[in-house]
Amino acid sequence: MFSADIYQQRRARLQAADLSGLLLFPGNADAPMNYRDNIYPFVQDSSFRYFFGLNEPGLAGVIDADSGEVTLFGREPEVADVVWTGPQPSLAERAALAGVNRSRPYAELAAVLRAARDNGRTVHYLAPYRGEALIELGRLLALHPDELGAGVSAALTRAVVALREIKGAEEIAEMERALTVTRAMHLAAMREARPGVAERAVVGEMEGIVRGHDWQLAYPSIFSRRGEVLHNHHHDQLLQAGDLVVNDSGAASDSGYASDITRTLPVGGRFTPRQRELYDTVLAMQLAALDAIRPGVPYLDVHKLAARVMVERMTALGFFQGDADAIVDSGAYAIAFPHGLGHQIGLDVHDMEGLGEDLVGYGDEAERSPLFGLGYLRLAKPLKAGMAITVEPGIYFIPALIDAWQAEGRHSQYIRYETFRQYRDFGGIRIEDDVLVTEQGCRVLGAPIPKTAEEVEAAMAD
Amino acid sequence: MFSADIYQQRRARLQAADLSGLLLFPGNADAPMNYRDNIYPFVQDSSFRYFFGLNEPGLAGVIDADSGEVTLFGREPEVADVVWTGPQPSLAERAALAGVNRSRPYAELAAVLRAARDNGRTVHYLAPYRGEALIELGRLLALHPDELGAGVSAALTRAVVALREIKGAEEIAEMERALTVTRAMHLAAMREARPGVAERAVVGEMEGIVRGHDWQLAYPSIFSRRGEVLHNHHHDQLLQAGDLVVNDSGAASDSGYASDITRTLPVGGRFTPRQRELYDTVLAMQLAALDAIRPGVPYLDVHKLAARVMVERMTALGFFQGDADAIVDSGAYAIAFPHGLGHQIGLDVHDMEGLGEDLVGYGDEAERSPLFGLGYLRLAKPLKAGMAITVEPGIYFIPALIDAWQAEGRHSQYIRYETFRQYRDFGGIRIEDDVLVTEQGCRVLGAPIPKTAEEVEAAMAD
Repeated sequence: MFSADIYQQRRARLQAADLSGLLLFPGNADAPMNYRDNIYPFVQDSSFRYFFGLNEPGLAGVIDADSGEVTLFGREPEVADVVWTGPQPSLAERAALAGVNRSRPYAELAAVLRAARDNGRTVHYLAPYRGEALIELGRLLALHPDELGAGVSAALTRAVVALREIKGAEEIAEMERALTVTRAMHLAAMREARPGVAERAVVGEMEGIVRGHDWQLAYPSIFSRRGEVLHNHHHDQLLQAGDLVVNDSGAASDSGYASDITRTLPVGGRFTPRQRELYDTVLAMQLAALDAIRPGVPYLDVHKLAARVMVERMTALGFFQGDADAIVDSGAYAIAFPHGLGHQIGLDVHDMEGLGEDLVGYGDEAERSPLFGLGYLRLAKPLKAGMAITVEPGIYFIPALIDAWQAEGRHSQYIRYETFRQYRDFGGIRIEDDVLVTEQGCRVLGAPIPKTAEEVEAAMAD
Repeated sequence: MFSADIYQQRRARLQAADLSGLLLFPGNADAPMNYRDNIYPFVQDSSFRYFFGLNEPGLAGVIDADSGEVTLFGREPEVADVVWTGPQPSLAERAALAGVNRSRPYAELAAVLRAARDNGRTVHYLAPYRGEALIELGRLLALHPDELGAGVSAALTRAVVALREIKGAEEIAEMERALTVTRAMHLAAMREARPGVAERAVVGEMEGIVRGHDWQLAYPSIFSRRGEVLHNHHHDQLLQAGDLVVNDSGAASDSGYASDITRTLPVGGRFTPRQRELYDTVLAMQLAALDAIRPGVPYLDVHKLAARVMVERMTALGFFQGDADAIVDSGAYAIAFPHGLGHQIGLDVHDMEGLGEDLVGYGDEAERSPLFGLGYLRLAKPLKAGMAITVEPGIYFIPALIDAWQAEGRHSQYIRYETFRQYRDFGGIRIEDDVLVTEQGCRVLGAPIPKTAEEVEAAMAD
């Protein structure tokens, strides 16, 4: 975790948001796998971690927005804890790490919240997303889990988003630290992705690198020769010469910051001419997007710019026909690029998604499109300096989608289905970097990872 | 998964248990990490998997115990599913894999259960253990999550335990398949655990092997030079010559079966004479236990036998004084062996623990001891042919425990604290195998993994 003053500053900025009442930040509990005590690796709630830093279960932080008093609720270690999990600092010592000088037994939290509400004070809380959290928050507030949604504090949510979406230097440094490991993962994959190798063997190599740091993945790895399946978490195929493999994988640092990188690799080490045309198209989409990013520009516009670059190039290749703007505006382009250009990234790989994707990605300044494809765009609102975002255009040939659209004649004035049908077995391409929005434009985070076709081919030849 | 007839046979045996009403087996949902859609690797509920095999979220099985009718409830794949996760079989096709010929939309499940209860029929269910499951089961049964515990079916629980605790040949084969990977993990650790290597580097090596099969860990790895911390999941230390490292780690096969193996390694490749005396003591405890295992023998007795072997040897080494039986019966021995000898293993690494540890491990034929140490024994009841169990004695020097007991003079007639104090920095030793109880005795599962001091030293010299 960071030094205590970082958390003190973050909480002070939150208190400056003019809220009244108690601000409740429950940390996460352990998550059971197949029985209560066989647990998944612990992942802390990101907002608790942002304001209190501590990375262990069973804690809650309360900020009195009126008095400024901050309290950490938790449990003191007992003798049995020492036998099973080793010597541990006291609750007060843990609170001090977060710059908090008041701590109380967790068992008193419900009474503290009840007393506040009995006195007519508001208890603000963010949207819970785990079953355990819903049950516990319901217990703390004497509400049925189903009733909690209505009580989520929009004011606290907005205040937290406003803080978390502008990254501090300490956060960017951690994201770049995460990227050093993610870079090693991707370089290893470039070395290992040879014909005859199982996808899962490459995944094991990459994930072994992450676990060799005692870190966790930021999200489940995608490593597939069937890259057109956007969230393909199976790794059961053998790589074959001529395959394109989409490798979307990233580590979370021990401080919790995510990285999220995609590269697309030609198995055998060289892109075919057919692959190269479309690879360079995706690269051009990404470079055009990077070039357009700056404060004040709506990310929706950057998405559309990337789509337009794709449409122009793919029209020349015989995939589309007609006016490029019309092909973008109609949503016809989404047959090849059916997802959004990117999202914020930070403590969450889709940063703050749990706080409400519309609020975080659209706010009051943008509205989600009803169009297929564009509707999946997670970030549309104007960019701000200090935001960290992903830029991840792609081109995919999804047989089920091509068949369905052709059958209903969707966008048939723009889409040349006969060309798409020749690419049914092509797979997919995606190129993704993590980017900091700066005052002048943007900066790609982390040391460069081979990205141009030539760079990727050179890395695979090593 | 196994062939459909296996699941049909298991369900038929369950129906023979003379229950009446509906038997409800909800499968697990996805488990969120730091927001709803960023999920942990999926782990199916073990009882659902035992009777229905399918390893995906969003399913529930219902057995009508009176009519014999079996129904799988789930969702049909939609176009968006195909785009994001690829082509998928229909619900009926998935049901057929489990030998079930009736399937219905998941959305109808609540009404089916309500109709049954309105007709005075019982809906039997097992104890839920995940927050999501508590909320969903509460929704299905129109109960508050807190009310579900009282409604857990003791009859269904007993019937399921009776089936699951006797392993079929197909299950033993899967556990041995899991052990092939676990063996590779342990052999890799023996090669890698050299002075100057970080614990986490060895963990990364081992877990990379598991992920290279696209499998998951059966439980969080313990790999620590501070083996006296029984559940030490930190791997942040550098190995030093002269350390003992406890390596308690195991893979779960893709069919869900767990393995659970512990070896203790001398960093530098050779046990010191002081380590060797106690290592051979733990080995003698384990071999004596293996020799004593047979149907009808209470595992409590096997635990006490292992403790007695330890006390005899450690008395000769100056750790205890007085009558060996008294040292065992008083619980004084637990200062060095504070946990249980083992537990059942199968689809769960602590098999069926979620169904109630007392019911599974003690039943009507044994009672949990109030003694420190022995109270942690998870399995005490008489063994049966076909049970799969772990045999995992250990010796540990836990400074906090030694200090606390000495301060209160606990068992001071038996414990020679001055000797224990000389071993404060010794760490811990544990040796664990997975074992099938046979008609004649037992069989250690899997290909042998180096276990005697000589074998371990030879493997580390490779």
